[in-house]
Amino acid sequence: MTPVTAGSGRSLTDLFVEAAREAIDDAGVDKVDSIYVGNMMSGFLQRQEHLGALMATALGREGVPTYRVEAACASGGVAVNAAAKGLLSGLEDIVLVGAVEKMSGYTTPEVTAGLMMAEDYVKVASTGVTFVGLNAMIAREYMHKYNVTHESIAQFPVMCHQNALDNPKAQFRKKVGVEDVLRSPLVADPLRLLDCSGMGDGAAAIVLAPKDIARKFTDSPIELAASTVASDTLSLYQRPNPSTFEASRRASERAYAMAGIGPGEVDVLEVHDAFSVLGVMALEDLGFAEKGSGTKLLDDGECARDGRVPTNSFGGLKARGHPVGASGVYQVAELALQLKNEAGKCQVSGTEVGLAQSVGGIGSTVTTHILRRVN
Amino acid sequence: MTPVTAGSGRSLTDLFVEAAREAIDDAGVDKVDSIYVGNMMSGFLQRQEHLGALMATALGREGVPTYRVEAACASGGVAVNAAAKGLLSGLEDIVLVGAVEKMSGYTTPEVTAGLMMAEDYVKVASTGVTFVGLNAMIAREYMHKYNVTHESIAQFPVMCHQNALDNPKAQFRKKVGVEDVLRSPLVADPLRLLDCSGMGDGAAAIVLAPKDIARKFTDSPIELAASTVASDTLSLYQRPNPSTFEASRRASERAYAMAGIGPGEVDVLEVHDAFSVLGVMALEDLGFAEKGSGTKLLDDGECARDGRVPTNSFGGLKARGHPVGASGVYQVAELALQLKNEAGKCQVSGTEVGLAQSVGGIGSTVTTHILRRVN
Repeated sequence: MTPVTAGSGRSLTDLFVEAAREAIDDAGVDKVDSIYVGNMMSGFLQRQEHLGALMATALGREGVPTYRVEAACASGGVAVNAAAKGLLSGLEDIVLVGAVEKMSGYTTPEVTAGLMMAEDYVKVASTGVTFVGLNAMIAREYMHKYNVTHESIAQFPVMCHQNALDNPKAQFRKKVGVEDVLRSPLVADPLRLLDCSGMGDGAAAIVLAPKDIARKFTDSPIELAASTVASDTLSLYQRPNPSTFEASRRASERAYAMAGIGPGEVDVLEVHDAFSVLGVMALEDLGFAEKGSGTKLLDDGECARDGRVPTNSFGGLKARGHPVGASGVYQVAELALQLKNEAGKCQVSGTEVGLAQSVGGIGSTVTTHILRRVN
Repeated sequence: MTPVTAGSGRSLTDLFVEAAREAIDDAGVDKVDSIYVGNMMSGFLQRQEHLGALMATALGREGVPTYRVEAACASGGVAVNAAAKGLLSGLEDIVLVGAVEKMSGYTTPEVTAGLMMAEDYVKVASTGVTFVGLNAMIAREYMHKYNVTHESIAQFPVMCHQNALDNPKAQFRKKVGVEDVLRSPLVADPLRLLDCSGMGDGAAAIVLAPKDIARKFTDSPIELAASTVASDTLSLYQRPNPSTFEASRRASERAYAMAGIGPGEVDVLEVHDAFSVLGVMALEDLGFAEKGSGTKLLDDGECARDGRVPTNSFGGLKARGHPVGASGVYQVAELALQLKNEAGKCQVSGTEVGLAQSVGGIGSTVTTHILRRVN
């Protein structure tokens, strides 16, 4: 993983290559049979598509099959899933999955327009509503429906900022309290600045291989026990119940079945908290709390690294940073570090199973990945 | 397949849904386990990403996993390959692959900038060179190196226009001669207007399933006998030999090995003739002619529908049209019609095996698909 930063001035390629080289070196592999690249906005912001061949060339690995996968903010998560299918096809042995996004160096209106490409341009984006505006509607509905206060929800970013203090690659390493969140500048009522993830540049990469091949390179492989993708309507206005992400429920239910576990067996959790309320909703939609009661976990300190459901242990989207198309791979890489007991000061003790949830658009695509330590 | 047109005013979604519904109805399937969407330029031109969830929703099939795959002009071909891997993974039974591009309704500079996203923005596109300019360099090099005349190469688009006369879905149904090509307006020396594919809107879709499942829906399934992707350097300037596409050779060699055949067994061929010279080079790189002698096949009428290597039987990119990210799926759909003996006036007699080559960027990504009639 590269550090997540804004204003580094580094190119898409530089970022990707740094993460990919680190992953390849860490895995100790020479051969890579194919390369999967997750990214959302490079066409719009960098006037650059065809990232598969671009990155293969930059890595000196032109020739191999390459796949650029896009699903808005879930691009990285979907790239991991597509790569896992590639391995299961039996056509390839070792694959690289990397994801990158560069959001700095552009005006806020440019990035805002770019992010809205996750929603329907014709019917929604063209009205002028922004992505944070749509999430503000979700927050308002959630707070009203379940009688939950902003104070309660604000505990989510507070917890993320606390965790990011120990992550040298985090974009925002600053302790904040609930009052800081509530007094930060209003972005889209009720969401304030500290309810929202920021704009950042970053890339993350992992190497995947079937278990028998992975064992040639490491004595402690981490198993990808489940990888699922589910979709929902593209647009928020098409949903009867905006305060639940059905795709999140679908993807996680299939993943639990695939891995043969339930939420109770998850030791470390990464959720897609692009906005504070989404972090809380994820706790519920993934089965860690009843609908409307996600904040109770926060009240009780259960999401802290020493709690029952350690969540976003490296800072999550809010504080580690959210280079949108790359975040899904950051999550998986962070879980792998946790399970390998290599998470440094972010380490959660005794982790055997990790789960990552990545969300594209307004809950329109959701991926779930379950990782398991192989003993 | 939708007809390829310019100026229809139809949206990306309308185009995709028309093709997808036709494919699903033709296949007679109810269930679709996942949806693969190929597209290149929607972010830049339509300010729309996240086409997976968009199209699943438009088809009333939200919930299924969706994958948007991008590899410039080879987006459709790579989407077919990714879907084939999905089937081989054993995780899904019936998949829909659709690809769409909308290029009309924008200025030529806008589309020209969009197409250059297939090349390296930082090092190449930013210099102002255009995509047709790069292909003109290839044409000049090819003509010089092999002492081939423009007259000889111009036979390729002439043949495509001839074939398109019989294809009601073709964008350009107009007979042209070699003299017409040579006298058409100069675009980038030596390439003239009739050497170049045009800008069009279109969508194509297919349904794939493992053989045992396909047999429940049809007595005459068409086998996808090979599906390969290869890459090369992203940029033309990085190539020692610009008049051969190494990725084309790599992808086709792997495909021939996978299908257990050689070029001599191909009865009908679809090649990526975005520019006339690329059609000729494809005949060579795919093994149908020695390097530098591709035009001899045209001299001898071998590429006509009654020739030895019937090529671009529906008109190819030049005359059927080239909605860039969709063309790779058009090719596969056209081959399927040929092998099913449902190609109407475009029918080539006695087809058992078809091959399609799709090219992304300046030969930077190439896919090969081999289809075979199952007797």
